[in-house]
Amino acid sequence: MGNHLTGYRCVVCGSERSASGIALTCEACGGNLDALYDYEVISREWSREQLAADPDPSLWRYLPLLPVDSVPDRKSIRVGGTPLESLGIIAEKMGLGSLWVKDDSRNPSTSLKDRASEVGIRHAIEADKRTIVVASTGNAAASLSALSAWHGVNAIVVAPAAAPPAKLTQIVQYVATLCPVAGSYDDAFDLSLKLAENRGWYLRSTGVNPVMTEGKKTVAFEIAEQLGWKMPDAILVPVGDGCIIGGVHKGFRDLKAIGWIDRIPRIIAVQAEGSSAIADAVARGGEILPVKANTIADSISVDLPRDGVKAVRAVTDTGGAAIKVSDDEILVAQHDLASSTGLFAEPAASAAWAGFHKAVENKIVRGGENVVVLITGSGLKDIPAAQKKVSIPAPIKATEEGLNEYLSSLD
Amino acid sequence: MGNHLTGYRCVVCGSERSASGIALTCEACGGNLDALYDYEVISREWSREQLAADPDPSLWRYLPLLPVDSVPDRKSIRVGGTPLESLGIIAEKMGLGSLWVKDDSRNPSTSLKDRASEVGIRHAIEADKRTIVVASTGNAAASLSALSAWHGVNAIVVAPAAAPPAKLTQIVQYVATLCPVAGSYDDAFDLSLKLAENRGWYLRSTGVNPVMTEGKKTVAFEIAEQLGWKMPDAILVPVGDGCIIGGVHKGFRDLKAIGWIDRIPRIIAVQAEGSSAIADAVARGGEILPVKANTIADSISVDLPRDGVKAVRAVTDTGGAAIKVSDDEILVAQHDLASSTGLFAEPAASAAWAGFHKAVENKIVRGGENVVVLITGSGLKDIPAAQKKVSIPAPIKATEEGLNEYLSSLD
Repeated sequence: MGNHLTGYRCVVCGSERSASGIALTCEACGGNLDALYDYEVISREWSREQLAADPDPSLWRYLPLLPVDSVPDRKSIRVGGTPLESLGIIAEKMGLGSLWVKDDSRNPSTSLKDRASEVGIRHAIEADKRTIVVASTGNAAASLSALSAWHGVNAIVVAPAAAPPAKLTQIVQYVATLCPVAGSYDDAFDLSLKLAENRGWYLRSTGVNPVMTEGKKTVAFEIAEQLGWKMPDAILVPVGDGCIIGGVHKGFRDLKAIGWIDRIPRIIAVQAEGSSAIADAVARGGEILPVKANTIADSISVDLPRDGVKAVRAVTDTGGAAIKVSDDEILVAQHDLASSTGLFAEPAASAAWAGFHKAVENKIVRGGENVVVLITGSGLKDIPAAQKKVSIPAPIKATEEGLNEYLSSLD
Repeated sequence: MGNHLTGYRCVVCGSERSASGIALTCEACGGNLDALYDYEVISREWSREQLAADPDPSLWRYLPLLPVDSVPDRKSIRVGGTPLESLGIIAEKMGLGSLWVKDDSRNPSTSLKDRASEVGIRHAIEADKRTIVVASTGNAAASLSALSAWHGVNAIVVAPAAAPPAKLTQIVQYVATLCPVAGSYDDAFDLSLKLAENRGWYLRSTGVNPVMTEGKKTVAFEIAEQLGWKMPDAILVPVGDGCIIGGVHKGFRDLKAIGWIDRIPRIIAVQAEGSSAIADAVARGGEILPVKANTIADSISVDLPRDGVKAVRAVTDTGGAAIKVSDDEILVAQHDLASSTGLFAEPAASAAWAGFHKAVENKIVRGGENVVVLITGSGLKDIPAAQKKVSIPAPIKATEEGLNEYLSSLD
């Protein structure tokens, strides 16, 4: 059922190359690549009815639209198949038609990055590569490490030494080779490119490997399937490097290409004010310039977005928008999301919730519309950040009187 | 489809009471209660084929065997529907027929406790109770808080102030009223009973409310369904209070009562050496005496097990066993599980993995057998514990040379 991949096209200069071997960036101009498929064959050989009959809830149910030959032998610690929660009460309160949250923190390593790791590892194995290197702010690394453990490949992780301890702990628990560098994510990124090139390792870093987009796009497939192929009006996506939002866009484009959906929702990028290269680029008409990133939302803290062109395109091609939110708004949104829905999201993911509220206020999302907010990672990954806006009460005496007194004090 | 509940029977003295109202402990002797159903009606009105056709992956698919009238209106932040991962390579290496891990860390608050909270909240709402109190080592509280946020009820949490900060942070993010007491879980437990009694609040504490068993039993339903109703030989369960293992047993008993399975697997309790009241009771023929609990596995750190009778019965009625593991074995097992399967489990859940290895060594689990290990909570809930056996390397220079030097040093 797999490998209808026909080649790649550069998102900058439009040059094409064949599907054979591992493609990274464009040989002509260095731009990132789009994966191309034989959509005619896929739409002829695959139907929504066939998909509905597949009992596998994981992302491998979408094999015909993935750039690999077949599903992993050790199928599968479940990647994907995450819930799309309908938030009717909040939708009503905000005057929306409907509101859903796609909870991708329910993946094995508790982030959306598992989608790219799962497909990337399979891609590497089919190309006879057994060592995979990744640069990461933390989530992609934890994800690659977790799934490497599962699939029996070696993971080499280059991450900022200042990444949240929970993410670094996950990585070493999963037995990856962790290289914590005294530098930024951007430093880690450049080093991962060199390691892959010099040692012939498979590169799982974001943007420069088009297969990462192909993995992440499965979240759009799931949303579409969970909504019965009826598209929402808008989807809000937290954005750092730009790979997730590019993946969401690619997923909807693929589905449109095979005729399973009739339109693509407006894609709304949400960035931290302190790491807003994409939003700035959208505002200035497309040119992407690096910033000096500084935000509590570590997963989207990026100087130079490595998938910026796809990110800007996702916004502009769909009539979307780009929204900036402050760290304070992110932390308020984290608590608001947790206390109104029971979803405890990490700061980067909470940014999407903050951006959603801003979008409604500013009429970027309009009354009566149907909206999806994408939650990309778990709040358990960064407890120190989650403690900034809420506080744990001081210990109280373990007696009935102590407790009654404490409860009265709250009234 | 719901409420085939016919009454309750005391697990100590056998007294029965009707299904009406909220039942806590036995009025005659104070023992815990078993929920009773009209299995004849259920097996007549419900079939495995009907179940297979239900698209809802959550625990509400098992409504006919739950003690409530109907599913929640705000259905449903997905509780249950967690993956059963097949570990073929490890099974082969260990000479087993097959090995599965049930990953219940994939629930909304990342622990199995969500099952009891979800059913308990529905039970409370149907009894017109809107405030719910719980005593908890952390997971049950985080769980009740998360799902209270979802269902719009009030949660009052009594927990040891020394619970892992990640769990306490979850609770306050979810907006429960947190009462952190300067005392043990056992102190918190007694206080929760008094609060419920004095204020008329619904009691979600473990053991004394038979509905908690009814929620937790759904994990057994899922395992059975995921295995195509072919029972494994043994299942390993981490045990503190005894409610989860009692729930697993009850789930299999229910399925046998309606004729959907033909036998119940041997249930193997795994306890921390420092909190082994159940294992000690099994060894001495049933009598449960309190211990002074002291273990790194906070979720199963309990002086007096509040569901001890059901726990001992689960072991003895099924020809199972009780195994003790040291804190050191638990931490080694945590890393072994993460690095061999990609599942990062909290210490209490890792205890089951440690116990599994001990059971194979000691031939409590025998060659060729089919085994399930139950993973009850995520490792992200207690990062300080997870750092005890693995270490994060010191930062390295963010240069190619620095990285090459570091990688050479590992060879």
